[in-house]
Amino acid sequence: MSTLIEYPIAPELEVSEWINTAEPLSLLKMKGSVVVIHAFQMLCPGCVSHGIPQTKMIASTFSENEVNVIGLHTVFEHHAVMTADALKAFIHEYRITFPIAIDKPSPTASTPRTMQRYNMKGTPTLILIDKQGRVRLNHFGRLGDMHVGKMISDLVSETVPSSEINTGQQDKHRLDKAESNCNDIGCHT
Amino acid sequence: MSTLIEYPIAPELEVSEWINTAEPLSLLKMKGSVVVIHAFQMLCPGCVSHGIPQTKMIASTFSENEVNVIGLHTVFEHHAVMTADALKAFIHEYRITFPIAIDKPSPTASTPRTMQRYNMKGTPTLILIDKQGRVRLNHFGRLGDMHVGKMISDLVSETVPSSEINTGQQDKHRLDKAESNCNDIGCHT
Amino acid sequence: MSTLIEYPIAPELEVSEWINTAEPLSLLKMKGSVVVIHAFQMLCPGCVSHGIPQTKMIASTFSENEVNVIGLHTVFEHHAVMTADALKAFIHEYRITFPIAIDKPSPTASTPRTMQRYNMKGTPTLILIDKQGRVRLNHFGRLGDMHVGKMISDLVSETVPSSEINTGQQDKHRLDKAESNCNDIGCHT
Amino acid sequence: MSTLIEYPIAPELEVSEWINTAEPLSLLKMKGSVVVIHAFQMLCPGCVSHGIPQTKMIASTFSENEVNVIGLHTVFEHHAVMTADALKAFIHEYRITFPIAIDKPSPTASTPRTMQRYNMKGTPTLILIDKQGRVRLNHFGRLGDMHVGKMISDLVSETVPSSEINTGQQDKHRLDKAESNCNDIGCHT
Repeated sequence: MSTLIEYPIAPELEVSEWINTAEPLSLLKMKGSVVVIHAFQMLCPGCVSHGIPQTKMIASTFSENEVNVIGLHTVFEHHAVMTADALKAFIHEYRITFPIAIDKPSPTASTPRTMQRYNMKGTPTLILIDKQGRVRLNHFGRLGDMHVGKMISDLVSETVPSSEINTGQQDKHRLDKAESNCNDIGCHT
Repeated sequence: MSTLIEYPIAPELEVSEWINTAEPLSLLKMKGSVVVIHAFQMLCPGCVSHGIPQTKMIASTFSENEVNVIGLHTVFEHHAVMTADALKAFIHEYRITFPIAIDKPSPTASTPRTMQRYNMKGTPTLILIDKQGRVRLNHFGRLGDMHVGKMISDLVSETVPSSEINTGQQDKHRLDKAESNCNDIGCHT
Repeated sequence: MSTLIEYPIAPELEVSEWINTAEPLSLLKMKGSVVVIHAFQMLCPGCVSHGIPQTKMIASTFSENEVNVIGLHTVFEHHAVMTADALKAFIHEYRITFPIAIDKPSPTASTPRTMQRYNMKGTPTLILIDKQGRVRLNHFGRLGDMHVGKMISDLVSETVPSSEINTGQQDKHRLDKAESNCNDIGCHT
Repeated sequence: MSTLIEYPIAPELEVSEWINTAEPLSLLKMKGSVVVIHAFQMLCPGCVSHGIPQTKMIASTFSENEVNVIGLHTVFEHHAVMTADALKAFIHEYRITFPIAIDKPSPTASTPRTMQRYNMKGTPTLILIDKQGRVRLNHFGRLGDMHVGKMISDLVSETVPSSEINTGQQDKHRLDKAESNCNDIGCHT
């Protein structure tokens, strides 16, 4: 018998507001596509100099049909000044056109909820989710453009078994697992 | 008879708040030293990627005895989010240690008062003031590090005629001229 | 009936000397793998600043099992000084470890023979060859790392139809076609 | 009595061939001007990526009246391939327009003669010589553009005491000292 690596199901995003998209997005709806999440803070120097330009490059290199690119504003410090309005000014000035989600603040912790769910270590963090909705990369820090291009392309090229096709039941299961998985990766406050 | 180039007297800064300095600074007090002013906005991409790092380099290349380096936060857009508190978070995250002045908002215009006085075209703007308090450079946009290093060093090397030595009378005259000069460069609203 | 894009069969390399490899390589032997060819000249500034570092990055990002990386020294000017010995010193100083082929000089033209066969416009040129031995990219100039990473990964992910499996007969046919194709792309001198 | 720092007199260059200049140059003739010497090898990666571009920037930032910029090709390895002809092709491809001196090979050592005289540690080395013909910087490795711009400008701004004005006698003395100094810095082979 073969041994399979089991990748964790990606917890759903918890979002207080969406920018640059007519409708709220969800991992559930994007199942079947590769999803790239760049978690950043607008006052994080490494995000501004490296992460944001790289994410823009991802959005221009891959077609929207094959890769969904999302910026996730995970504010865990300076909450009073990294507001939604400040973020919108930042998005305008840095000419960011891909969808941006504002991670929902936690009532009990400085770290917001999606950041907790994914057990992110800080910003910038790059998360890659495959067509089956599984987390294939959760990386804090910088990665080179070629390596990122290769990893995303590899996920795009994967074929999804028919048994993994998106269904309501499947999705419900996934969300349940997402909630429960969250304890497994130690993210609840 | 020789023809002399006459450089404009540098108008005094109008500042609503100082950061990274125990006492407010003034061009008057700094007369006799070279002054470098980097006018920026915390959400201006060119300032963040080029201007701020270059100004940090100026501050580390020249000694405080010979060059006074000042950052001037000249907010002319997104006023509601580029607040003093937001700027302080920015200064903290970008590890800026030289004094920062917040340009005093104008009651009647989006452009703040010092920015008006100097007739700046936008951000980033680099202003160099010689030991006699005269504006020797007022440049909007980017300049290479070597060129900037040369220009500042040239000003540091200038010897000031004894007739230009700083005195109360002289300074009063200068401030008066600064006020009046302001009309000459079209900055009053 | 579907319309298929037909990619040209990659002409075999014509090489006067191999460096960094125990045995001469050939496209024939590498069929079934993706092949990346970086055509350069050691005195070409764009090759040295961009092409060589990018090719080193390709060699470190992709495994040898899936991608064969080859540098091709295509000297078409300054022949007297870009000798094999000079190239070896260059390879040593720039710490290049992937195989390097010296393109065979033409007896009648300044452009060497493989460069002619591929109708290259100059250096740097990036050539990507798929598992079936077909030219999928022949690009003169610079391309971003992410785009290159994506393109190579896409080729690695392609599955080869069983009818295209490498056989002696197949290979012979390919070489014949390569020879004849060469006229089609106007490369014979 | 004051204590003076004594800077070593710059040894004269020993040159087998000049490129990009109608007449041979000498430190003797350039006395009264600042001289910048960038010692490099055409196959030295740090020279090509950093030293040569910085030296071109020096040549474009400072006027020829105030600063003499010289490239010195100090070949101490791969002698057989870093020939005068190879260097000329390099100079052509990298569009270098300032004068280049080829350091005279030593009959007994791999290190050429001027490199020995200046006791250089390797390439790239930046040497700054003041208007009085004294070595003010002899630096192996990389320095930032702003720092280099400041240092050169500082030397340009220095006024030369009238007792140091260039005369035949003075120059003769200097050359004698240069010859004798050379033992002091351990450069004779």
